[in-house]
Amino acid sequence: MSSPAFDISSLHAFYASGGTISAVIEAVFARIAKVGDPGIFLHLADKESVLEQAIALETFDPTVRPLWGVPFAVKDNIDVAGMPTTAACPDYAYMPETDATVVRLLKEAGALVIGKTNLDQFATGLVGVRTPHPVPRNAIDADLVPGGSSSGSAVATAQGIVSFALGTDTAGSGRIPAGLNNIVGMKPSLGALSTSGVIPACRTLDCVSIFALTVDDAWRVFKVAARRDAADAYSRAVPTDGFVRTPSGLTIGVPAKAERLFFGDAVMEAAYDHALRMLKELGHRLVEVPFGDFYRVAELLYEGAWVAERYAAVKDFFDTSAASFHPVTRKIYGGAKQLSAVDAFRCLYALQDLKQKVAPLIASVDVLCVPTAPTHYTRADLEAEPIRENSRLGTYTNFVNLLDLCGIAVPAGTRSDGRPASVTLLAPWGRDGLTASLAREIHQSSGLALGATGWPQPATKDTTFADDLGLVDIAVVGAHLSGMPLNAQLLALDGRLLGKARTSDCYRLYALPGQIPAKPGLIRVAQGTGGQIDVEIWQMAPAAFGQFVAAIPSPLSIGTLFLSDGTSAKGFLVEATAIADATDITHYGGWRDYVAATT
Amino acid sequence: MSSPAFDISSLHAFYASGGTISAVIEAVFARIAKVGDPGIFLHLADKESVLEQAIALETFDPTVRPLWGVPFAVKDNIDVAGMPTTAACPDYAYMPETDATVVRLLKEAGALVIGKTNLDQFATGLVGVRTPHPVPRNAIDADLVPGGSSSGSAVATAQGIVSFALGTDTAGSGRIPAGLNNIVGMKPSLGALSTSGVIPACRTLDCVSIFALTVDDAWRVFKVAARRDAADAYSRAVPTDGFVRTPSGLTIGVPAKAERLFFGDAVMEAAYDHALRMLKELGHRLVEVPFGDFYRVAELLYEGAWVAERYAAVKDFFDTSAASFHPVTRKIYGGAKQLSAVDAFRCLYALQDLKQKVAPLIASVDVLCVPTAPTHYTRADLEAEPIRENSRLGTYTNFVNLLDLCGIAVPAGTRSDGRPASVTLLAPWGRDGLTASLAREIHQSSGLALGATGWPQPATKDTTFADDLGLVDIAVVGAHLSGMPLNAQLLALDGRLLGKARTSDCYRLYALPGQIPAKPGLIRVAQGTGGQIDVEIWQMAPAAFGQFVAAIPSPLSIGTLFLSDGTSAKGFLVEATAIADATDITHYGGWRDYVAATT
Repeated sequence: MSSPAFDISSLHAFYASGGTISAVIEAVFARIAKVGDPGIFLHLADKESVLEQAIALETFDPTVRPLWGVPFAVKDNIDVAGMPTTAACPDYAYMPETDATVVRLLKEAGALVIGKTNLDQFATGLVGVRTPHPVPRNAIDADLVPGGSSSGSAVATAQGIVSFALGTDTAGSGRIPAGLNNIVGMKPSLGALSTSGVIPACRTLDCVSIFALTVDDAWRVFKVAARRDAADAYSRAVPTDGFVRTPSGLTIGVPAKAERLFFGDAVMEAAYDHALRMLKELGHRLVEVPFGDFYRVAELLYEGAWVAERYAAVKDFFDTSAASFHPVTRKIYGGAKQLSAVDAFRCLYALQDLKQKVAPLIASVDVLCVPTAPTHYTRADLEAEPIRENSRLGTYTNFVNLLDLCGIAVPAGTRSDGRPASVTLLAPWGRDGLTASLAREIHQSSGLALGATGWPQPATKDTTFADDLGLVDIAVVGAHLSGMPLNAQLLALDGRLLGKARTSDCYRLYALPGQIPAKPGLIRVAQGTGGQIDVEIWQMAPAAFGQFVAAIPSPLSIGTLFLSDGTSAKGFLVEATAIADATDITHYGGWRDYVAATT
Repeated sequence: MSSPAFDISSLHAFYASGGTISAVIEAVFARIAKVGDPGIFLHLADKESVLEQAIALETFDPTVRPLWGVPFAVKDNIDVAGMPTTAACPDYAYMPETDATVVRLLKEAGALVIGKTNLDQFATGLVGVRTPHPVPRNAIDADLVPGGSSSGSAVATAQGIVSFALGTDTAGSGRIPAGLNNIVGMKPSLGALSTSGVIPACRTLDCVSIFALTVDDAWRVFKVAARRDAADAYSRAVPTDGFVRTPSGLTIGVPAKAERLFFGDAVMEAAYDHALRMLKELGHRLVEVPFGDFYRVAELLYEGAWVAERYAAVKDFFDTSAASFHPVTRKIYGGAKQLSAVDAFRCLYALQDLKQKVAPLIASVDVLCVPTAPTHYTRADLEAEPIRENSRLGTYTNFVNLLDLCGIAVPAGTRSDGRPASVTLLAPWGRDGLTASLAREIHQSSGLALGATGWPQPATKDTTFADDLGLVDIAVVGAHLSGMPLNAQLLALDGRLLGKARTSDCYRLYALPGQIPAKPGLIRVAQGTGGQIDVEIWQMAPAAFGQFVAAIPSPLSIGTLFLSDGTSAKGFLVEATAIADATDITHYGGWRDYVAATT
């Protein structure tokens, strides 16, 4: 049995058909050897200890352990018990006794830690070259920087060494390297994944992020890892639903054409245009959004006082051991020393002003779609301009956590020069499911292979989906039908027409006397003694449904309607007392046909 | 016609019965003269200009202008066009050309600005004595400090010079002086009232607050003034509903007895205990809440980096004109100079840690009820200890804006020594209606006269209320009744029992065969041919109601039930087809009696 692709559905299919976990672990280490990149891992688990972890999992059971036997890597600013945490600063190293909360949750779900990965030191950078260790090779094009700060995690995933990897993302560290390595980079809503056991960069903005080969995999990891954690003061309970099959007809905001920044990279611009055309073809509506204030927020991040958060996180160490820092990192951190509390609050005010300005822009769309990076840089570019090119890479990422958005970078195609093209979808806090849904649609439409592995995208499985929004289906019979006088009530409540249906033949339909607007009443009779009546099935959120029912006047009520296909839905019924003087119109087969025939 | 009491309902009754606005303006100036306190106003409008404003209002119409002809005062850190703004620092004075947003909204609603009021300089203080001008006299007991920083606004209201007044509240400046002058002090949710045109104290924490003689008046002003304002980066759209007639059965958190701080003032402690007994008698449930972390948040405010916000607000002026400051204020502001950005962020982290700790405590109750101030201080006390006693006054106020709570201080009784007793009700952001509802109940129960005026509280008018939460009343008939098997469904959806009722006599009740658990069905018949059936009325939020209806199985439905008192409610009905084999139990008068008789 050859080793499987490492996307989770392929991997679990391998286990389900008798593949062994030891074969998978062998494959992990064989791939590490084959890739032969000494820059990816700063610490590697030994094979035996991974095997020991695996034995504790017992029988394959993905319902109990949704990440059963799934190998993953951890960025080296996140604690794994028994492996040194260094943040790519050897003098800073310490040995944690406990796992970071997210690592613990993933292990409990059956995932296996393979090792700790390289990063821009202290997670400061978007390039992946600010490390005293060998720089990880970009998995797609070795000339390019790997992207950072989560460089090793992204490359390990893109090379198929692991199924997924943890990164962190303050300014874009979970998205840029995903974009540069043809994989998915999910940056959850702030507070979704606990930062307990993670070395802070900017505590008010830090996220733990997820690199994966597919959106389904990222979502599966997110569902496991997103837990409110009392040990993290910034932890919040984030919705983990809303990942749906059909994110149809979304309004997608894109930077106004004249304001798009590619720093002269026409190939990247063409790739982005191509991605936008794909979104239109998928039935979504694109709206250009003025983007100046988003860029202004992005500029605030590195030019403003937030760098004092980075300094605060390691102040004692920096004050005594500045020489231990990477030269670029040292320069950045040193700049924080003279910032005053007044500077800090003035930056918060400037951010708040910009937040108010962009809020209506964000509210006017469902999702924003931006290039993940505006252009690509080679390692030579970064040697020439170590800070400017890093800042430019953050053009479309730096503003995201400051504005409390969630985001996901997703492969959207291949540039004409063979380098990866990626877009990032952004939405307000808590809408991770929405951005993931659209990302999934984009990734599938792209038809791209996974990372640098050549593995095809796995076949869709609907069972991946939660669809657990609690939406209510309601069958409407009369004046609420499409085009009828009360249909506007459904639209005003964001109701969505799912389609037409017919009742079972246990109903009779009556035209009720004295109703304005005219209305029918449906009443249940013994099976076979009524007719099949035309209805429309609409779907609403529970709150909207509650308001809708509350406004239904006597003699109508909302009960259960049995449909001809054997299913049932909530629907309109009339009280028996109200049909005494009503006309039986069952033989018309529905209210619409009755109205057409009689007016 | 003698001049009316100045609570808004008395004032509007005066206008409605032919009283003139000029008589009211005369009364305002007569009262200013009679009170004879040179410390209240820093600038007074001239009578003629107020009369001119009044003429522009045309005919009395409180539906178009809910504050028609209502005199009010404005704290002198809030701009009124054509009146100097000084913040009680004469050298800082400037002449604004436009009104602050809140002032403009109140004027548009028909209110009349009488003057600008004294304050603790730059709104820094809770005492009212940190002013270069004469100190306003406490309206109840001239030995006591008036409280601050909104001293003049509170005293002007308590003396009946104006119907209401604007203050500001960062650490308690809208609550402490209300508590010390026997009036209502509403500190709305952060962002509810625009701070555009207000001199900042701490921009991240500042609120415009409302002093009034009654809770109804404060709410009326709040409804006018609470508007999202693009000119204020911290403005937020806040709910202005939820002010209800019957806030019954609330769970009210109070500081754990052993942790209550009164600084040796047994009289204040007794007054607080008395207020808590009153709350119990009103049918509410008291729960002791550990309060140590609330005190820790309070300490952060003055000991932490937020003082840098005060300094940032007037930095250029302070740097060049420190000698123009009140000595105590100068000392406080000077302390901000050496604070670093690292200090600022570390304070934000400390706050976030405490927020996470108190969040479950706050979530475990509907409202918190604390003493407004822990004790009273005389002017002599403040001369001896100008900073310590000020800090102590903020024991129960300083933490409120840091925790993003809304609050309202309300007179709760008179201490045994004749000084005012006040409690403050607190709830999470956006629940201003809930705290106001309970404050109203407390104030009415206290039977206190208004401020220092001797005016009785006006008779209740139910028309004041919005009751616009969109809650749905539902009549339950059978297995959902209290104590019955399905009642837990209502409780799980946060349903609230409003009381018992009976249907009109147009229903028959049937015991349905084969239902588990046993259930009745109610069906409508011609008026007079049925019985009055016992029901319970429960109330739910729309989303809960939607979920509830969605889960109701066939043959039951939710329609409209007509009740014996002429009202109606949503309620359970059964489909006629389902009663073919059912037993008519109408003569039992209700499901509960049937169950009792047959089991």
